[in-house]
Order: sequence, then C-alpha cells, then structure tokens
Amino acid sequence: MNILEAGAALRAGSVSARELTAHCLNRIDAGNGVLNAFLTVTRENALAGAETADKELAAGIDRGPLHGIPVALKDVFCTKGVRTTCGSLLFKDHVPDYDCAVAEKLASAGAVFLGKTHMHELAYGVTSNNPHFGPVRNPWNVDRVPGGSSGGSGAAVSAEMAFLAMGSDTGGSIRVPGAFCNTVGLKPTYGRVSRFGVMPLDFSLDHMGPLTRTVRDAALCLQALAGRDERDETSSHAFIDSYVPEEGVSIKGLRIGVPSNFYFDQVDPDVTAAVRKMVQLAAGLGAQVEMVTVPDIAALNAIGRVILLSEASAVYERFAHRRDEFGADVRVLFDQGALLPATDYVNAQRLRRQFVSGFIRLFSQIDVMVTPTTPTVAKRIGENSILVGGVEEDFRLATTRLVRGINVLGFPAISIPCGFDEEGMPIGLQLIGRPFAERQLLSAAAALEDATNFHLQTPKVFFQPV
Amino acid sequence: MNILEAGAALRAGSVSARELTAHCLNRIDAGNGVLNAFLTVTRENALAGAETADKELAAGIDRGPLHGIPVALKDVFCTKGVRTTCGSLLFKDHVPDYDCAVAEKLASAGAVFLGKTHMHELAYGVTSNNPHFGPVRNPWNVDRVPGGSSGGSGAAVSAEMAFLAMGSDTGGSIRVPGAFCNTVGLKPTYGRVSRFGVMPLDFSLDHMGPLTRTVRDAALCLQALAGRDERDETSSHAFIDSYVPEEGVSIKGLRIGVPSNFYFDQVDPDVTAAVRKMVQLAAGLGAQVEMVTVPDIAALNAIGRVILLSEASAVYERFAHRRDEFGADVRVLFDQGALLPATDYVNAQRLRRQFVSGFIRLFSQIDVMVTPTTPTVAKRIGENSILVGGVEEDFRLATTRLVRGINVLGFPAISIPCGFDEEGMPIGLQLIGRPFAERQLLSAAAALEDATNFHLQTPKVFFQPV
Repeated sequence: MNILEAGAALRAGSVSARELTAHCLNRIDAGNGVLNAFLTVTRENALAGAETADKELAAGIDRGPLHGIPVALKDVFCTKGVRTTCGSLLFKDHVPDYDCAVAEKLASAGAVFLGKTHMHELAYGVTSNNPHFGPVRNPWNVDRVPGGSSGGSGAAVSAEMAFLAMGSDTGGSIRVPGAFCNTVGLKPTYGRVSRFGVMPLDFSLDHMGPLTRTVRDAALCLQALAGRDERDETSSHAFIDSYVPEEGVSIKGLRIGVPSNFYFDQVDPDVTAAVRKMVQLAAGLGAQVEMVTVPDIAALNAIGRVILLSEASAVYERFAHRRDEFGADVRVLFDQGALLPATDYVNAQRLRRQFVSGFIRLFSQIDVMVTPTTPTVAKRIGENSILVGGVEEDFRLATTRLVRGINVLGFPAISIPCGFDEEGMPIGLQLIGRPFAERQLLSAAAALEDATNFHLQTPKVFFQPV
Repeated sequence: MNILEAGAALRAGSVSARELTAHCLNRIDAGNGVLNAFLTVTRENALAGAETADKELAAGIDRGPLHGIPVALKDVFCTKGVRTTCGSLLFKDHVPDYDCAVAEKLASAGAVFLGKTHMHELAYGVTSNNPHFGPVRNPWNVDRVPGGSSGGSGAAVSAEMAFLAMGSDTGGSIRVPGAFCNTVGLKPTYGRVSRFGVMPLDFSLDHMGPLTRTVRDAALCLQALAGRDERDETSSHAFIDSYVPEEGVSIKGLRIGVPSNFYFDQVDPDVTAAVRKMVQLAAGLGAQVEMVTVPDIAALNAIGRVILLSEASAVYERFAHRRDEFGADVRVLFDQGALLPATDYVNAQRLRRQFVSGFIRLFSQIDVMVTPTTPTVAKRIGENSILVGGVEEDFRLATTRLVRGINVLGFPAISIPCGFDEEGMPIGLQLIGRPFAERQLLSAAAALEDATNFHLQTPKVFFQPV
C-alpha cells in the first residue's frame, strides 16, 4: 500500500491510522534487528499520534494527504526531545530542544512520526556502513549496502517499515538509496524545501527530500514541505500550486534528453539495458526522445568535489580536536578538505555559475534529461572498490558519478525503479528537470511509473537471519 | 560648475558641449603632466562626441542630464578600441573589442567620453602609487596620494578635468579617493550597477560607482547606470524611479545613527572634529541623531580580508607564472591569498551572512549611519605606514578600516566633503544606507551638502611644478 492508497482507505474507514502505524511498528520489530534501518523508534509517540489522527478524521478534521500516514526522518533532522545523532559519535547524546522545519510541516500535515532512520556517518558517504552504530543492510540482499547517505530511509521504505522517509542529498544521498532499494527518491530544486534545523554538511549542496514507494507519494510529500522559510536563508520564494501528477498523466510531446556524453561507457551492461528500455518506453508513450550533449560533466563533478570537501571541512572544523571520534572514511575526507586552497574553492564556485548557465541553455531544448541513477547495483557491505566495465574504481566516486553534478547545479532530480539485474538487485533511473519545474519532472516520472510495475516489487528476504 | 549647472547652461544655450569638453581637455593639458590622473586621453573622440551632443540638442534630441557632459572612466572599465590597462603590465597592450555596460549606458545617455583614468595597480590598493605608470598625485597637494584605487578619477574630478569619473570600489576604492580629493564618491548597493565588462578583482565585493563634485551629480549618474543587466549574474532586478534628491530636500525626522564602537578612538582629532560638526549640523536640521552599537566591526573587517585575499588570488591565479610583472605590494597580497585555506573562505562567507542580518536589524532602527570615511587625510606618496592616535599602522589597512566592511555587507555608502585639516587637506564623511535605499542615502547626503560649502572649495596648487 502506498500513501495515496492508504489515504483513500483511511477516508473510506477501511483502515485506521492506528492500524497503519501498528503495521509499520510490527515490520520494524520483525526486521530492524537485521536491517538496522532505524536508530530510534518513537513507538509511544507514534501510537499517540495515530490515535490523534484517527480522532481528528472521525471529527471531520482532515489535514490532507499525509494525515495519519506513518513517516520516518533521517537522523540528520533535528527533532524536539528525540535524539538526533547524524550517525556520529559527536552527537550520540544530542537531543535537540526544537523541531526542524520539515518535522514541523509533516506534523501539521497530520503525519505520524515513527522515529529516526540510520545513515552514513554525518551524511558523508554512500554505503551507510556506519562504524559507530553498525551498517544499514539492504532489504533486497542483507549482505549488500542500501546506498547512502540516507540508507536507513531507503531500507525502511523498501521494507514497508514506513510509507515515507525523509532524506538529505548533498551528492546523491537520496537518489542512490532510492535506486539501490527500489524506492522513489526525490531531490527537489535547491532552496525548495527548508533546511532549517537540519544538521548541515555542505551549505551550497544540501537538499532535503522524500523517499517513497511511488512518484505521486513523493509529490504529495513535496507539496506538504515546499515553500519559503525565513529561517533558512537559502530558502526560495518560488511557489507551485500543485506538484501531484494527475491520473493517467501523459508525456506525449515531452522532450526527453538522453545525454551522449554522461559516462554511459562506464555503466554496467544490466543498468544500461534497463535504462535503454525505459527510454524506448518513453518514446512509445509519445515522448520526443533526443540525444543531447551536456557540458563537460567530468569538470562539473570535479567542481562538485572541491565544493563538497571545502564546505564540509569548514562546517566540521570546530571538531578538529575530536578527530578520533570520526570514522576512517569520513576523517580522510575532512583532512582532504582542510588542505584545499581558498582559490580553488572560489574558482570552483565561479565555474559552477558557468555550468548552471550552460545547463539552463541545454534545458531550453529539453524538458527532462534521463540517466542511470548509479553505474551499478548495490554492492556488498565493506566493498570499497568495484569493477565497472573492467575498471577498478572507488565505490563512492563511481556511485555518485551520475548524481552529484546535479547537486552542483541545484536542479531537481528523481530516481525511480526501472528494473533488476540478473541477481535481482534493483536498478534506478534518474530524471533531471529544470529548476523549480518539479511538476513537469514528477509528471514524467509518474507516466513512466504508470507504464511499469518495477515499483510494485517488494523484497522477500530481509527478515531472514544474516 | 557641476553637472546640473552645466546641463542647465547647455539647455539655455549659454555654453556648448564642445566648450565644456574643450575646458576639460585644457585642464588635462595643463595639469595631467603633474597629476598623472589620466592614462589615456581620447581627445578626438571627445571632440567628436561633443559635436554630436551639440547637434542633437540643437535638433531637439535630449538624452537627459548627462547629455553633453564630459566624463572619464577608470582604466578598469573595458572600452571598445581604447586601451584598458587595469594599471597593470599584464594588460598594458589590452585593447578590448567591446564596451562595458557602464560605457554603453553613459554613451546612450549622451555623455562625452574624455578618456581613461589612472589607478592603483589592478585596483588592489589605496595609494594609486603605481610602479608601472607612475604615481597619481593629489590636486590638493601634489606630494600626497589621491587615495585609491580610483585615484585618477578622484584627482580628475577634483582638478576639474572631468565632471564625472567612474570608479570601482572593492574595499573603499571610490570613497577613499572621494575623501582625499574633496569629491563625492558613491558606492551603490551590490548588484545595482552592472559589472559586465569591468575587469574583476573580487566577485563578491566589487561595486561600480561615480566620483562627482556634488551629491546630486552622483545621483544623476546612478540613475543613468542602475538596473538589471542579464550579462552580469550578480545584477539585481531592484528598481527605483528616481534617485535625484529634490531642491531643498529635508532631513527632518531622519534617523541618523552614530556608531559608538566603529574605531572612533583610532581616528585623527581633525577628522573626528569635522565629523562631529556634521553630526551637530544634521541634528540642527531636524535629524534624530542617536548613538548605536554596530555588530563586531573588527570581525567584519577580518571577514572582508579573507574574502578579498581569496577572491583576488583566485582571479589572478592564471597569471601566477608572470609574478615578476606585479608590483611588490600587489604581489604580496596575491601570495597571501594563495595561502588561505578553503575552509577559512567558506566560514568567512557563512559569517558574512550573519553580519548582513545583524546590520539589517540595526538599520531597522536608523535610516542612515555616519562615520568618517578615512581615519586620516591623504598622506605623502611613498609613506606606507602612518601614525593614528600615536599608533603606527599600515597605511592601507588603516585607510580602509571604516569603509571595507561596507563592501562585505553590500550596503550603499557615499563619501562627501566635510572639512579640511590644519594643512588644508580634505576630510570625508561616510554615510551608509539600507540595501537598495540609495534615494534615502542620497537625500541625506544632499541635505548636508546644501547646508555646507566644503564641496565648493577647489585646489589651487595642482598645476605647480613638483
């Protein structure tokens, strides 16, 4: 059941928020010992919230599509009275005395709060193999990573522990677990969703967004969250009436760009084949598919790397005296960032503006661009290098190659399920849209979802002992 | 004669653009050998432009207040077919094939283009003591500096070689020569005047603005230049109908803040006395003068220094292999900037946003803030350290102490004449306004100018042999 279906059932009286919540809590009880998707489960709060949601509905108070829906937040979102670790020893006892904007908005939309999902340490990586609180496991194969950094959110939604789990995306951290766990993962336009009260990694790259089971669920969530927040100085004034694609939405005439020079030679054959089928499907649905040439994507990724390393090291500079408390992979990134000269950062930001202009020009010819979300499916936990096309590569750099440039641009992007490899591991399709054109992006994604059933597949094995 | 007066005379037929231009060219002929205010004089263009202006006026074509007015541009503004050196050996033979936005706008406003004014090398300093093209000299005492980096513009306006000379201001480079040369110097709000085609020093600190003989002349110029330019990505959409203060403008009820903690203890007694008299004058004119406490200005200046050094070094990094062609003072600044870590720059930009918020809060209580423009009057050419209040200080750092923080904020500011020291050297008063509230700022400045005659004093000695 997805959010739309659950909402209909709630309003038809065929299910209660209490039942939906109990179902999620049961799934967590059964599976979290293996998956480690949740760091904190707020059981009592969830049950009380569900009861309130049911009472309100019974009294005719309807807060909208998320009313009574059980949701989870990545442990990067500050929650009043609920521990918020950021997956780090630095914050292992950190209990905020306020709610982040996202928590406030979900609460006022009537969502039921299940707890906090596990993540890559400080959101700075893609495996969610956390050295302090243990690895998150992939419901599709518990020996594999769920992706990251929002790995717990991907695993939780995939394993039906929550209808919606919020993630943060600095260089792919929503879309990668979306792809690896067969869920939808939406990174909205930079500035669209308030970051107030979210523990920062990179000021100019951080985006907040949902992981859900369907595109329309992600759209419902965005609709509840989007909008200007004075407390977040990067928050945009841009506004859209509705993000939710209508039933039977058409992509006839939609201009879909397929980049000819976006690392397609460095992608696993299974992934290429799955993406190619989706492109053919889009063409069959009436979309105008055309090959396009994107500005130098390797340079864009290099720019992203300089900005990522510099800003993250700047944020965590004040913890330099506690370097023993960082995991080895995160520590080395902070060390790298501390060595970068200011001139490189300044020039990266200058070039960034040129790339944004170049991509805006490109998007005057197309409505949506499609790529694989990741070059491979999820790999084994602990595997730090992988083979892609016969070349051994660092797992983090290879995995973020197709996604992190989009954070540099600030354009909206979504990952949707688009197939499985021969071992049954999920594959993701990334769709990229024009800034603040989430509606168009979500409509394209919904039309492809409507024409496929990959998103209906569920993992069977997560509850088996490791 | 100022621009307003010249404009009235032109339209009354009592003077022609050709006569105004010939007057300026004569002054340049007489004085530039001593002052070195102009690097390039475009005599033939100027005379041709004046003739066109006269013909247009005779034919009833009136391009507005700058029609027929002889103007000069600092040699940082790219001008089609006219050498643009930026005061540097790197660009000694640089002849742009296009006009900057400012040149375009002045041309379409009918201004007559006299040539390019001399400057501190690469606009990176306050003395205009240029090792490659010689020092600019101060018309009030040719042994003294005119200030910088727009020193040639200050000297040219002060010596009646031009009615208006454009400057650029990254850390005081319009206001300092304004104060040292007894002219008005206006730094508009960041983003107000297009920087397209201006050779950059610091992306986030550079501002373009006029040096003129009166406040209303500066307002007329701003009106001709302000507005959105798609070619400058930092250009603002903000728009104001008219910037020009009306005759007899009143400051009754205007809230003028005098900061209690803005280095007033590190200012020469003559300067303090002159500024104090202006504050009393403002109170006598009905302004509400109140002491205010500004956010930590020393920290703001430190932030400015990190940003200035980093961005300037980033811009000129590609010339690192030509370091022998830089003057010693500029080279050492580039070397310093190249050593700064990216984390310091990122954190400086973070703190900058907090300071902007703090100052915006402060400006909800006041309309305008006043300070001295510089802690001292102009010093002798070649003097790199000065005594202020018995303390020996670096001349550049001391001179920019009261102005460069305002570039970090991006707020508009103006320097106006406010007196002379016992040796007859000019003193400047800085007025600072709310972002995009240039009209209010200019009105306050005009009211003070109307009640004083400092701006009417002219230097007598510049044409004497050195």
